Amino acid sequence: MTNMEQKNKNAILLLHCPDTQGILAAVTDFINVNKGNIVYLDQYVDHENNVFFMRVEWDLNQFLIPAEKINEYFQTLFASKYQMQFSIYFTDVKPRMALFVSKMSHCLFDILARYTAGEMNVDIPFIISNHADLQWVGEKFGIPFHVIPLNKDNRTELEKEEMKLLKDNNIDFIVLARYMQIISEEMIQTYPNNIINIHHSFLPAFIGAKPYHQAYSRGVKIIGATSHYVTSELDAGPIIEQDVVRVTHKDNVKTFVAKGRDLEKIVLSRAIEKHIERKVLVYQNRTVIFS
Amino acid sequence: MTNMEQKNKNAILLLHCPDTQGILAAVTDFINVNKGNIVYLDQYVDHENNVFFMRVEWDLNQFLIPAEKINEYFQTLFASKYQMQFSIYFTDVKPRMALFVSKMSHCLFDILARYTAGEMNVDIPFIISNHADLQWVGEKFGIPFHVIPLNKDNRTELEKEEMKLLKDNNIDFIVLARYMQIISEEMIQTYPNNIINIHHSFLPAFIGAKPYHQAYSRGVKIIGATSHYVTSELDAGPIIEQDVVRVTHKDNVKTFVAKGRDLEKIVLSRAIEKHIERKVLVYQNRTVIFS
Amino acid sequence: MTNMEQKNKNAILLLHCPDTQGILAAVTDFINVNKGNIVYLDQYVDHENNVFFMRVEWDLNQFLIPAEKINEYFQTLFASKYQMQFSIYFTDVKPRMALFVSKMSHCLFDILARYTAGEMNVDIPFIISNHADLQWVGEKFGIPFHVIPLNKDNRTELEKEEMKLLKDNNIDFIVLARYMQIISEEMIQTYPNNIINIHHSFLPAFIGAKPYHQAYSRGVKIIGATSHYVTSELDAGPIIEQDVVRVTHKDNVKTFVAKGRDLEKIVLSRAIEKHIERKVLVYQNRTVIFS
Amino acid sequence: MTNMEQKNKNAILLLHCPDTQGILAAVTDFINVNKGNIVYLDQYVDHENNVFFMRVEWDLNQFLIPAEKINEYFQTLFASKYQMQFSIYFTDVKPRMALFVSKMSHCLFDILARYTAGEMNVDIPFIISNHADLQWVGEKFGIPFHVIPLNKDNRTELEKEEMKLLKDNNIDFIVLARYMQIISEEMIQTYPNNIINIHHSFLPAFIGAKPYHQAYSRGVKIIGATSHYVTSELDAGPIIEQDVVRVTHKDNVKTFVAKGRDLEKIVLSRAIEKHIERKVLVYQNRTVIFS
Repeated sequence: MTNMEQKNKNAILLLHCPDTQGILAAVTDFINVNKGNIVYLDQYVDHENNVFFMRVEWDLNQFLIPAEKINEYFQTLFASKYQMQFSIYFTDVKPRMALFVSKMSHCLFDILARYTAGEMNVDIPFIISNHADLQWVGEKFGIPFHVIPLNKDNRTELEKEEMKLLKDNNIDFIVLARYMQIISEEMIQTYPNNIINIHHSFLPAFIGAKPYHQAYSRGVKIIGATSHYVTSELDAGPIIEQDVVRVTHKDNVKTFVAKGRDLEKIVLSRAIEKHIERKVLVYQNRTVIFS
Repeated sequence: MTNMEQKNKNAILLLHCPDTQGILAAVTDFINVNKGNIVYLDQYVDHENNVFFMRVEWDLNQFLIPAEKINEYFQTLFASKYQMQFSIYFTDVKPRMALFVSKMSHCLFDILARYTAGEMNVDIPFIISNHADLQWVGEKFGIPFHVIPLNKDNRTELEKEEMKLLKDNNIDFIVLARYMQIISEEMIQTYPNNIINIHHSFLPAFIGAKPYHQAYSRGVKIIGATSHYVTSELDAGPIIEQDVVRVTHKDNVKTFVAKGRDLEKIVLSRAIEKHIERKVLVYQNRTVIFS
Repeated sequence: MTNMEQKNKNAILLLHCPDTQGILAAVTDFINVNKGNIVYLDQYVDHENNVFFMRVEWDLNQFLIPAEKINEYFQTLFASKYQMQFSIYFTDVKPRMALFVSKMSHCLFDILARYTAGEMNVDIPFIISNHADLQWVGEKFGIPFHVIPLNKDNRTELEKEEMKLLKDNNIDFIVLARYMQIISEEMIQTYPNNIINIHHSFLPAFIGAKPYHQAYSRGVKIIGATSHYVTSELDAGPIIEQDVVRVTHKDNVKTFVAKGRDLEKIVLSRAIEKHIERKVLVYQNRTVIFS
Repeated sequence: MTNMEQKNKNAILLLHCPDTQGILAAVTDFINVNKGNIVYLDQYVDHENNVFFMRVEWDLNQFLIPAEKINEYFQTLFASKYQMQFSIYFTDVKPRMALFVSKMSHCLFDILARYTAGEMNVDIPFIISNHADLQWVGEKFGIPFHVIPLNKDNRTELEKEEMKLLKDNNIDFIVLARYMQIISEEMIQTYPNNIINIHHSFLPAFIGAKPYHQAYSRGVKIIGATSHYVTSELDAGPIIEQDVVRVTHKDNVKTFVAKGRDLEKIVLSRAIEKHIERKVLVYQNRTVIFS
């Protein structure tokens, strides 16, 4: 689940390409002949769209190609031949995650509890909020907390401030931990498939505002939460994880909210975990989630 | 779960009314003083809408009021005083259920397996289908199977035939066991909250045709099934029961359909069971499901 | 879910007694005639053992009997007549909860996150641990943290210290948030049905040490967590709440532990919540959990 | 989910062996160079025991090696080199399944409903029962039904009769669909990992007789069902599939049984499906279940 105890530096290769015979053999052979010890391999073929997806992780300890050259070699040897899209990551490089919050603390606490317990292989340089309510939480955990009171009038100006913070801190991805503001198109384009949101409904049911009120009004017997990458279309990005919990006629909006808190935090943290472990691949607005 | 083994004749009272002090005491007292032995009582107050809901079941063995007079007594003593809506049922009267099917057999088989095993306290006088595909199933189980090849051109005429069958057989409620035709407004009005449908999605997500295709296209990680009472608005009636099952990127529409079959049949049979047991009360397009 | 926003002082009555006619009517009538407004009522009859269980909550605002006299009145009027066991609680009195932890932080963080967010109507006067590892968490949240390095040699002596702390702080109930020591018979007898443990298995499977190792070795496809009241027999007390999560052959003990953390904290917090809300009644080593 | 619509004849290779570099590349290369089109590949490495597991399926349409020679070639080229255990199956060969039942019909109906709907790629030459109660079901579905009234006195003799039936009908595997008799050691040895049982508990909780009574007595909040291969030790064989459903204090043994029926039939049918699809590999009393 975590890479915490890892002694070795591993490389992680994520790729997809049109499916043709021999890709899997070619890639694993490339790693083997260069003395890489494969510690993880998962692959999947979408036979309807004829696309091959793969995640392979290998120990670099005796690997003959220097880490910094792997990308170039892989590009030269395979990428154009197989029309591959690929990314290479290294397990000794912690991704840098920015947290955006508003007033609710449950997702924030859940993430920080995992983080301080060493369960998340990530760095959190700062938290941004449009309210000061949770500033004390940032202080408790010793993480810089920037209050940027963004609203529809000052949005353009304050987003520049946010973008500067993200850039200055070399942020790799953003987590919206019940952040109640729209994300600008510029930020979405700068971090494609790198902004993770938690929506408090079983998407695509109850898109938009007040999903628990919508759910109560519809009389559902199960409520859900959905974590997804943010795209330009509201609540319509690729889904990473969903989960649900039963409700009854005895529940009301208030108890939906209470039950939903546990759902939201667990679903969001699972999505972050998968993202950090480089186990998510987006294709055609759907996600491949490697095991 | 079933009333199969019951030796005694019980009365079941279902009611709702504006919540005021003393209703529960008044009703239970009425049963007690008349020597009814209460074997089940569940009640619920919707504090937002200030409505009291109750289901009480008592043994009629020593009850002083004759069964056929209970309705009248209750009407006189309580109904107008408390502005109650109520229904009284007796456990020795089996509700009469009509089954509507099209081509898919899984829900039909599941219902008939329970029925023939004596698990459903119901009579099934006949099955209606717009196709002949499942006629052999009706024959296997010795249940009259009427093929009524209804389509958009002959709808008006053939629905008359259906309505006649329903009426002649004293049908109490209708189960649409993956019946793929629209139900007429007349039939809906004749059987309010007595037509149970199974929709193969987690409503209100994926209303209408081909919900599994819609779900696949959206990239959901969980699929669902929903049983609900049919109302004039498509797939928008009061929800009785829902359940879900996980899917992954390795699933496709075909495996959604296969996984969905088990969901659909279980969810539909649970809803039928609750309906037969008189444990469903509809209020403002939501259901109270007694335990 | 929480009593946080309550303006009114309510009384909560929990009772069980042999089932006879008229109890429900008698109790609700007693509350009504004394001008108590019932805001919650749930009752249940165990027909096999012929026991009546009830939880009723009413607003004391216009109640004619002073709060401090209710217990006496109820005792006199009903308890001996109906051979009742009953307890009365008031919603303006927060129960006092002691937390026992060892080295793992996930349950502790989850509880403190809810506590500081005002979601738990409880006071936490202190945390006890047999290790200093989590002292910093207590300090972060401003809660006294007592390191009592209890082991099998010093157990008798140090337990006296613990019992004194519990008594001096008027502790009502104890939560073992992954506390890895045996609880003494004396403590169990002092806090009957008031010590809540979380066991990291789906009890009664995998009693005792290293349940995830046992589960992995058995090759289960689902793992669970169980919160229960502590009794003299190890992991055999009344179960309050259980939940499960799927595992596959790709999981190992390490990922069981990681998946289990989320289960454990949610299951434990749900149990604490039910206990605080006075919705748990223990009878014959089973729990009645009111809705 | 099913192979029903398959036009092509595919080969399925299931294998496990000590993990060394290059196995995956070697096997996929072998298929590729001989013009087999891989339509499915899933593999898994147990890093703790250093075992490599693989399931690969390929279209034989243009495969250069004749189907009847594949086993020999594979044995020669790979098996001894890599110390492999392997099996080869062909999708145009339906496995032959014997059904054993006693008095309860729910699992039997569920299997036969799938079978007659063409959802299970299997042949069912006959049903065996120690009671005549379900003979009518066999007749309904046109499947020979042998009543073999086995008990502890006539066991040895009647088992010979059963073994003869199994042998004469070339049975590949046996499904115990709530069959309430012990299976002899001889039968177990003759069909290793080919006898599928459904046990009505969440194993290893509640081994042996009357698990629902045991579960009720223990006061669990969740009940389960487990399908597993039969081994010499009672209810201790490799688990194929498990699932659970919530219960409350309002449930009793009778409602456990009713809720359990749906669990049992779904869990058993899922296990049969996986077995038929050749997606189960047993290793050290655990199962690898390919996706």
